[in-house]
Amino acid sequence: MIHGRLVLRALVVLLLVVALFMAVPLLWVWIDNEVGTARAFIIPIAVTIAIAAPLLLVRRFEFEDMSPRDGFLLVAVSWLGASALGAVPFVLSGAVPSYIDALFETMSGFTTTGASILRDIEALPRSLLFWRSLTHWLGGMGIIVLVVAVFPLLGVGGFQLLKAEAPGPTTDKLLPRATQTAKVLWLTYVGFSAAQTLLLVIGGLSLFDALTHTFGTVATGGFSPYAASVGHFGSSYVEVVVTIFMVLAGVNFVLYFKALTGDVRALFSDPELRAYLLIFGATSIVAAIVLLPSVDGFGAALRYGSFQVASILTTTGYATADFAIWPTGAQTLLFALMFIGGSSGSTGGGIKVIRVLTVFKQGWNEMRYLVYPRGVFGLRVGRDRVRKDVVYAISGFVALYFTLIVAITVVLGIGGQDIVTALTSALATLGNIGPGFGRVGPVESYAFYSAPAKLLLTAAMMLGRLEIYTVLVLFTRRYWLQD
Amino acid sequence: MIHGRLVLRALVVLLLVVALFMAVPLLWVWIDNEVGTARAFIIPIAVTIAIAAPLLLVRRFEFEDMSPRDGFLLVAVSWLGASALGAVPFVLSGAVPSYIDALFETMSGFTTTGASILRDIEALPRSLLFWRSLTHWLGGMGIIVLVVAVFPLLGVGGFQLLKAEAPGPTTDKLLPRATQTAKVLWLTYVGFSAAQTLLLVIGGLSLFDALTHTFGTVATGGFSPYAASVGHFGSSYVEVVVTIFMVLAGVNFVLYFKALTGDVRALFSDPELRAYLLIFGATSIVAAIVLLPSVDGFGAALRYGSFQVASILTTTGYATADFAIWPTGAQTLLFALMFIGGSSGSTGGGIKVIRVLTVFKQGWNEMRYLVYPRGVFGLRVGRDRVRKDVVYAISGFVALYFTLIVAITVVLGIGGQDIVTALTSALATLGNIGPGFGRVGPVESYAFYSAPAKLLLTAAMMLGRLEIYTVLVLFTRRYWLQD
Repeated sequence: MIHGRLVLRALVVLLLVVALFMAVPLLWVWIDNEVGTARAFIIPIAVTIAIAAPLLLVRRFEFEDMSPRDGFLLVAVSWLGASALGAVPFVLSGAVPSYIDALFETMSGFTTTGASILRDIEALPRSLLFWRSLTHWLGGMGIIVLVVAVFPLLGVGGFQLLKAEAPGPTTDKLLPRATQTAKVLWLTYVGFSAAQTLLLVIGGLSLFDALTHTFGTVATGGFSPYAASVGHFGSSYVEVVVTIFMVLAGVNFVLYFKALTGDVRALFSDPELRAYLLIFGATSIVAAIVLLPSVDGFGAALRYGSFQVASILTTTGYATADFAIWPTGAQTLLFALMFIGGSSGSTGGGIKVIRVLTVFKQGWNEMRYLVYPRGVFGLRVGRDRVRKDVVYAISGFVALYFTLIVAITVVLGIGGQDIVTALTSALATLGNIGPGFGRVGPVESYAFYSAPAKLLLTAAMMLGRLEIYTVLVLFTRRYWLQD
Repeated sequence: MIHGRLVLRALVVLLLVVALFMAVPLLWVWIDNEVGTARAFIIPIAVTIAIAAPLLLVRRFEFEDMSPRDGFLLVAVSWLGASALGAVPFVLSGAVPSYIDALFETMSGFTTTGASILRDIEALPRSLLFWRSLTHWLGGMGIIVLVVAVFPLLGVGGFQLLKAEAPGPTTDKLLPRATQTAKVLWLTYVGFSAAQTLLLVIGGLSLFDALTHTFGTVATGGFSPYAASVGHFGSSYVEVVVTIFMVLAGVNFVLYFKALTGDVRALFSDPELRAYLLIFGATSIVAAIVLLPSVDGFGAALRYGSFQVASILTTTGYATADFAIWPTGAQTLLFALMFIGGSSGSTGGGIKVIRVLTVFKQGWNEMRYLVYPRGVFGLRVGRDRVRKDVVYAISGFVALYFTLIVAITVVLGIGGQDIVTALTSALATLGNIGPGFGRVGPVESYAFYSAPAKLLLTAAMMLGRLEIYTVLVLFTRRYWLQD
């Protein structure tokens, strides 16, 4: 059964956490003396605290008996609630007049999509731009994971939440208590963030630029306070640093945890990591070769190529060039990468490398039955045999993913978009990438979409981040049946 | 093990059959008095007979012990051989100077793709145009199925061949002997062809036009002797007749057989047929609504819409309008249909309705495990439970299909094509549809592609027609291992 009051209470805690983080941009209000923007943050923070605090004081939490179903409901309402709250400063400040636009932008932030409805990013006050990037950072490792890590009161039941928020096929239970697992994940994440910020500051970036781009990178988000994205700096040092950290962020964080606790072998024996690095390396080289005639030397071609390959593969969405006007070979390569995504357990979105690897192996595996119709062949990914029901679940997920892509494409087409725009909008939002091709290319924005289309894409971003099932299950009759 | 000599002998029989059918276009040489074209047919026929006949006289056939592996090899070499032979008249007549172009055109014919490298179709003599359409008709029901039907000497082993040539998930063994099954299928096919030809002649078409368009329809091919395709006639009667027969040709022929032998209920209880008709009906109506503002009245919109929906869904590829300049809603709808295809056991290509239905149901089914993690849920398509290994095989096929689409798209992109052209070229050839969007739209041709790209697309057409595995298995080490 569903524990409605439990879910409501947990939601309230989460919104309080979001409200607390909304106070951080006030630092830039103070530095830049943007007095007018202060109330855009202070009002929603105050209102949230005023409503939430009394609710919390009533009684202490007991999450021990939170069921999987509660988890799904909580995750869905949390992401919706966080985006609804996080959108308020954009509207109150007057920077984004339409609430639907602001919701799109904030959902794009929390889901680390990086698709933007802003036509003139650089016109926004720095406090808002900082908040926009901070939503990436909070969403990257998971807002609920954060809450579980910070509030031990959520207790053991928290693991259900972790699973619902990051339901990839290989979510290992690292430590007996969800709180510890969540803490380790967040500490690793904070460590990477600190390292990248430091490297960017060393490279000459201001703290603001370093932080916002770090948030966009380690969360595989893609928001930049500049219209030209990472290309704004025109610095190959910055580009290389961002490339490295995008690639690092696309790796399963569980592997980092294992390596840090002594199991370095885990890194070398992980089939997903190998496939991920192989895809990154091979497509970077092919992209560089394709780009060679249009840039100055192989070094530059490799820099541009590897940056963009990392950006799309990890579903970050940063750009150092308008890849929509690149040679068609590089374009189709990036387009193909949109169907893959980062590793499971990483901050990247998309179908995920392990799923692509598994369904491909499954497809190839079936050929054996043609030669030996009576044989029994297991499926191996790396050294491990994959259980049939896992393969079954993975191919079900991929099927649903494609169904959604096609459905969104048709709806956007009926709304007036051409095939490339409609298809890559679907891929870029459901896959949490951000930019696509056509009218949603890297130098464009999603501003031109109609309000209903923006809501559809907002839903797609949320579906993609929560890996579809978690959200869709709420729309099945079975979920709401009493038992 | 592989019986090389058996395979060679069967191939010889098949090439003889193709050569015999190559004599039919001589009728139009005679009628039109195109003396110059006669030798283009007579030379390859004579050479084939001269080489093949002595080989056949040596010893009588014994196909009883043909193994599945022999079947795969025979099917692959047969389709390649038939296309290689069928291409000769195009080159010898001077109509298509490049042999690669002629091979593309003939493979497109036999595989019922309908993609053409001809820039000026109407400049060709009628005999060649007739041969071009006749390749559709021979390939539609399967050349090997025809040989098995006509030459009982291929015996029981022939069923291996039927399975290899049409390896869809629901190839039922209708009758104990392959020969009988093949005969029934071909008789049904001939019946439909006769009916459509008659209806078209009644509608005022010449016998030539009626026959060529019938071949293109019942085989879901799409070749027309006119640049404007079926739109050439400007007759709504013709369009409606072609629409109906396209839809009929996209149905599993096994169902016709069952209905003809008294089991009419089979038609109503078949889940694939229901889904197929539902997709056809629903998308026709949506297409008509989208087209409404740009045409004269709902009747015309429905006529255009249903024609094009039937044409793409059944992978025929005929056109009554340049759908590449239609409203984007209609375009994305047709684009989405390119991922489905006809029914299994029909002459249509693509992924096939039953597979799409199964993987979609599988994706939806997985959601139950979220609510009841310890439940056991079978997958039902219609009234029947689908065995897990069948679902497994189907999703493997779909995964491989998508992998090929993406791979071909990237290769064509590197060759200089934009995303839409590259992607829809891949979809239109692997799915045996014919036209796509962009540079391969319905009023365009594949002529602009480079020779290597044409060979790649020729391979894609063959892979698609033989449902990938049958051909790919020949490239595995396992296939060639002795045992």
